[in-house]
Amino acid sequence: MEDTIEQKEIPDIVVGRLPMYLRSLQRMAQEGRQVTSSQELGEKLGISAAQIRKDLSQFGEFGKQGTGYNIEFLVEQLRQILHVDRDWEMAVIGAGDIGSAVARYKGFANRGFKVSMIFDNDPSKVGSKVGDFTVQENGCMSDAIQKAGIRLAMIAVPATHAQDVADQLVKAGVKAILNYAPVSLNVPSDVHVQYIDPAIHLQRMTYYL
Amino acid sequence: MEDTIEQKEIPDIVVGRLPMYLRSLQRMAQEGRQVTSSQELGEKLGISAAQIRKDLSQFGEFGKQGTGYNIEFLVEQLRQILHVDRDWEMAVIGAGDIGSAVARYKGFANRGFKVSMIFDNDPSKVGSKVGDFTVQENGCMSDAIQKAGIRLAMIAVPATHAQDVADQLVKAGVKAILNYAPVSLNVPSDVHVQYIDPAIHLQRMTYYL
Repeated sequence: MEDTIEQKEIPDIVVGRLPMYLRSLQRMAQEGRQVTSSQELGEKLGISAAQIRKDLSQFGEFGKQGTGYNIEFLVEQLRQILHVDRDWEMAVIGAGDIGSAVARYKGFANRGFKVSMIFDNDPSKVGSKVGDFTVQENGCMSDAIQKAGIRLAMIAVPATHAQDVADQLVKAGVKAILNYAPVSLNVPSDVHVQYIDPAIHLQRMTYYL
Repeated sequence: MEDTIEQKEIPDIVVGRLPMYLRSLQRMAQEGRQVTSSQELGEKLGISAAQIRKDLSQFGEFGKQGTGYNIEFLVEQLRQILHVDRDWEMAVIGAGDIGSAVARYKGFANRGFKVSMIFDNDPSKVGSKVGDFTVQENGCMSDAIQKAGIRLAMIAVPATHAQDVADQLVKAGVKAILNYAPVSLNVPSDVHVQYIDPAIHLQRMTYYL
């Protein structure tokens, strides 16, 4: 049944809100909460209750009129829908400040991800430890990723190298890239890219100041 | 004239694309380029040329039919529109891996921002150096931010402390917060918040895998 549901084309903007719903619900669950409502969720997230009900209804019937949502059940459903009811292994490319921070980041636990290798092209970094990982040289990247069947990677290299790294990742079978380099990447249409660039976020706010 | 233009209500989604246009144009300028087109920009960014022309036309006449956009001129216009034709001072709260990486981040140069102070509540970190900055204790935060007239801050503290820090920042006069803590913040309506949470970006992609 899940497959049937997913064959329906869901707008990407709706997909983009699901991780925020999941994060809020997981936090409520951690606090020992059992039931919530689209109103409460909406207030926490700054999204209207009607929007939340509409988004969730695209994937099934998760709540009952008047009784709200069972948090544990909805968490499980969202984890399945987003395919994070497992741990995806990830490669980190670039062992500078940002790559190292990401490789050591504790916030992936329980959210579907774990870093399992890190690479850099700087000989002074190769062989050193970042958290639990030994930095490997970029030359090993394709082989190691292919052998491990890794499909997710994070790019944290200078902007000038990011496209080259992305090309290697795509050849090695990576299908989703989180790019911390402040540059747009060209990848085949079956490869997903998301961007994290703090200056972009900040500029979006200074417009209003 | 600029003020008149800005009084027109521009959809937030349009505002959100301007920083990406600016980043691409600045990169072209760095490469010594002088002219571009909405087609070229669109290909780089995965946005239609028509959308780009429509977005930019909301702010004025920046290109001529057939001759394209003068890159330097459009960069200057976008910097003015986004209010990054200056350097905004920023406070970083949290001197852990992420806060430290952000405080040392070189990528803010020429994009309108510079970090000018960093705080932490861990006595073992207070007084230590992060890049050019000495970590100050959280107790000094409100005073220091108020005195310096700082209006932008980045939160890089654990999720459990983020709301408390946000409340202090708002009281100190901060109007825009970039939040790295994986939790939604409640702030007054005149305070802007943007979120950076790598797990959210990753989950948005695993949906499609």
